[in-house]
Amino acid sequence: MELPARTVERLSKYRRILWQYKEMEEAHIFSHDLARLLHLTPAQVRRDLMLLGVSGNHRKGYQISELIELISQTIDHDEGIRLATVGMGNLGSAITRYIVQTPGKLKVVAGFDIDPSKVGTSVSGVFCFHLNVLHEVIPAKNITLAILAVPSEDASAISKMLVSSGIKGILNFTPVSLNLPAEVYVKNHDIVTSLEEIGFFTKSG
Amino acid sequence: MELPARTVERLSKYRRILWQYKEMEEAHIFSHDLARLLHLTPAQVRRDLMLLGVSGNHRKGYQISELIELISQTIDHDEGIRLATVGMGNLGSAITRYIVQTPGKLKVVAGFDIDPSKVGTSVSGVFCFHLNVLHEVIPAKNITLAILAVPSEDASAISKMLVSSGIKGILNFTPVSLNLPAEVYVKNHDIVTSLEEIGFFTKSG
Repeated sequence: MELPARTVERLSKYRRILWQYKEMEEAHIFSHDLARLLHLTPAQVRRDLMLLGVSGNHRKGYQISELIELISQTIDHDEGIRLATVGMGNLGSAITRYIVQTPGKLKVVAGFDIDPSKVGTSVSGVFCFHLNVLHEVIPAKNITLAILAVPSEDASAISKMLVSSGIKGILNFTPVSLNLPAEVYVKNHDIVTSLEEIGFFTKSG
Repeated sequence: MELPARTVERLSKYRRILWQYKEMEEAHIFSHDLARLLHLTPAQVRRDLMLLGVSGNHRKGYQISELIELISQTIDHDEGIRLATVGMGNLGSAITRYIVQTPGKLKVVAGFDIDPSKVGTSVSGVFCFHLNVLHEVIPAKNITLAILAVPSEDASAISKMLVSSGIKGILNFTPVSLNLPAEVYVKNHDIVTSLEEIGFFTKSG
């Protein structure tokens, strides 16, 4: 299915909320509950869900398990999304642990570092390889996405290694703007810069 | 100084790279080095640094310590940016640990949770309070920004508590769109949604 980025993002958010409702043993949800939590209009939610070929019961709302299944069929890779975490320091390990604990199709299948105290260990079941076997491990394990959590001065060179190993998308936690071919999908999540920006704009508050 | 958001973001990124160069015991840096790492033009970098009232020596470049000091004077609060982490689960603790270890003016001065196994403990020196004392602790410790890393179903209610306690800015790690007064500065960093979005767009790759 051809979907715009915004729609994929909303479907992904619906599913995360549905998982949490399911854990609370709810069976149904109304479009206005999803709309309220995500600050959307109920009409927008219903339009998105109609794309999945489902419409809610006006008394009970949508069936949660069915909705999760339909969203998953639409946005997931059949075999899951196979990730590597590159840079298994404090932040890289934490993100790895967080993703392993989050239900869904994201699978962290390898970590990479150069620190001898990390190489050969595991974090939440994810084995840490030395960076110098990246070119072998990425294709062998069929990994397509990477979480980049390395020191800034290494970010640019390592991102190029990732792309030449077959990586198609990167979630970049460094402050460096990666200069990569246009077909590589990059999203930037620099926590410190974001906090400093928020800090600056609330300075006078 | 009145600066646009993009400029503050770039200054913050320059500083992070300068810190790392300084750790490698470099004394000077050229605008084209900063430009290359951040994927900007050298002219843009020089324009930004001129705003700080500094221009580089054409043989040696900019003096790193001076540049860090000038950027800090421009974008930092004098007393540092005082943060709370709300939700000291896996992700909240990790982000806390990461920020504590990052040099700069960001100070995490309190954590909050409702889990009895977390309340009363410390993460990297940051004490975890029970959420029900948030209204007292936030103003008492002069905290202005919050990192929100709570379960989705609690995000909306807790964000409102934060604002009524005096919080001016939030870095939101939940998938929930917070519906807050316009003067509260919110940035969204939903890791799972970002990875799923990258995954979707690299599906056919």
